[in-house]
Amino acid sequence: LILGAGGFLGSALAAKLCALGASVHGYGRNSDGRAQDPRISWTHAPFSDVSALARALDGQDVVYHLIASSIPETSNRDPAGTLIEDVYATLKFLDICQGTSVSRIVFASSGGTVYGIPSKVPTPESEATNPISAYGINKLAIEKFFALYRHLHGIDYLAFRIGNAYGPGQSPRKKQGVIASIVHHALNGTPIELWGTGDVTRDFIHIDDIVAGLVKGIAYTGGCRVMNLGSGAGRSINEVLAEVQRVLRLPELLVIRKPGRPADVPVSVLDIGTIERELSWRPRVSLAEGIAGTAEWIRNGQSQPLAGAALPS
Amino acid sequence: LILGAGGFLGSALAAKLCALGASVHGYGRNSDGRAQDPRISWTHAPFSDVSALARALDGQDVVYHLIASSIPETSNRDPAGTLIEDVYATLKFLDICQGTSVSRIVFASSGGTVYGIPSKVPTPESEATNPISAYGINKLAIEKFFALYRHLHGIDYLAFRIGNAYGPGQSPRKKQGVIASIVHHALNGTPIELWGTGDVTRDFIHIDDIVAGLVKGIAYTGGCRVMNLGSGAGRSINEVLAEVQRVLRLPELLVIRKPGRPADVPVSVLDIGTIERELSWRPRVSLAEGIAGTAEWIRNGQSQPLAGAALPS
Repeated sequence: LILGAGGFLGSALAAKLCALGASVHGYGRNSDGRAQDPRISWTHAPFSDVSALARALDGQDVVYHLIASSIPETSNRDPAGTLIEDVYATLKFLDICQGTSVSRIVFASSGGTVYGIPSKVPTPESEATNPISAYGINKLAIEKFFALYRHLHGIDYLAFRIGNAYGPGQSPRKKQGVIASIVHHALNGTPIELWGTGDVTRDFIHIDDIVAGLVKGIAYTGGCRVMNLGSGAGRSINEVLAEVQRVLRLPELLVIRKPGRPADVPVSVLDIGTIERELSWRPRVSLAEGIAGTAEWIRNGQSQPLAGAALPS
Repeated sequence: LILGAGGFLGSALAAKLCALGASVHGYGRNSDGRAQDPRISWTHAPFSDVSALARALDGQDVVYHLIASSIPETSNRDPAGTLIEDVYATLKFLDICQGTSVSRIVFASSGGTVYGIPSKVPTPESEATNPISAYGINKLAIEKFFALYRHLHGIDYLAFRIGNAYGPGQSPRKKQGVIASIVHHALNGTPIELWGTGDVTRDFIHIDDIVAGLVKGIAYTGGCRVMNLGSGAGRSINEVLAEVQRVLRLPELLVIRKPGRPADVPVSVLDIGTIERELSWRPRVSLAEGIAGTAEWIRNGQSQPLAGAALPS
């Protein structure tokens, strides 16, 4: 079962799991675009629909929880509202998991927001967690509640603190996804909106690498419950701009500079020693390859099936 | 304004602040017993009543947030419910604090639950926070949301991670307050229920010491936002039993042993270096004195005004 199977991560994961022969059930409000694989059965419902969730859980072994109601910036406009949509709904979900066949929950936490402004870069999982967005606090609270339900009820889980996801399949028109947006504008010759100076540094991690980590999480039997999942390398927005210009061989990029946003931490780079050691996983897609693949997907009108872009076979 | 002024901490704090000449407004569902000081104005309302809260906030300078809907053990029966009652309600409260005259919020967090099973004893504020109760997760999430609202809206706060509170004014009939309960049963010759082996170790801190710290929090201008408030010393339940027996000069105590509870961490002792340094505060009431005072208050039928027991003048 994939909660949020219609999203960027969810649809890529669903395609990969299908390709590996898994029986996949998708759950979420939208199943548009590439997630409409005929092999994937679907529940169209909001995360808050407890009875739909209970039916979807029936007979499931592994659940991926990839749902978030907001992005960091918008979450700060209504922290109380996002608490209900994300944390409360997750607790209701955990309540109905008790007594089911679910053996493991894999949760998409957030490497870019749970630490807040980090005192150590790259940041290991043991660092202090002081988020500056409601989004980050909610992700952190959900991690803690997973640990509690494991302690009290034996429901096993694994939380990946994922870096900034990018790659084919990410909509360039949403507020998340700076690389998709930059590539989109670069290809169309339209202006790129830059928040702040461009020195903001992120850990960009390709969707194929994320999916590979999420899949490895199913069979993991070690003792780590929280793992960073990123490239381990920091790239500033200015570096990304330069790389996009280089890879796409463009003479110039049109950039409009806007003020910085309070939910943005200046630097986010993840220490990935834990996941490399525990899952024998490492990032494989270089930024240049990732940008080229993203550009190809956007050039093709974003209609190319995900399996073509994200899966080797 | 004291949110939760009818509780054990709240009523002692209200009495102390009145004695110091402050204008005190109490807020809470119950104002029974000693909090009915004629100098204290009152709003009888649940924490979830946003319009009552907004009226109570009018013209207030400092707000103490001492409300918790549950105790660690009961919180685990319905984490989703306590999330709404504690975290969601605090966010609604923070929303209406914006644009008011409130200059500082002092929050009663929990030294005994936010750390979970600590890897370092005594435990400093910088230690990992892995609660094993929904109560502890909620306290931790509220701390993080206070930091967020300070970051976004400039609302200043101070969170005290308080140890196990005890002393005159604590009801021996509630599920919290092991010392009050032990003293009560010891005085009446009735059996004391002991959960687990009695090796469970806690940081017991006297109500007078807590109130002194809470009051010092008003004028603090330093940069620490989270401070442990405890005795800094660990006492096992078995040690408390022995001390009660010694102080009350009883030939024996009647003890009934019950199984341990999953929300109980084995050891909780707070490192109090931060509060000692930042607030020039230190614990003053010894366990023997505290037990004697508790026994005196219980012997007097628990009707003695708090100011008599908790305040020197």
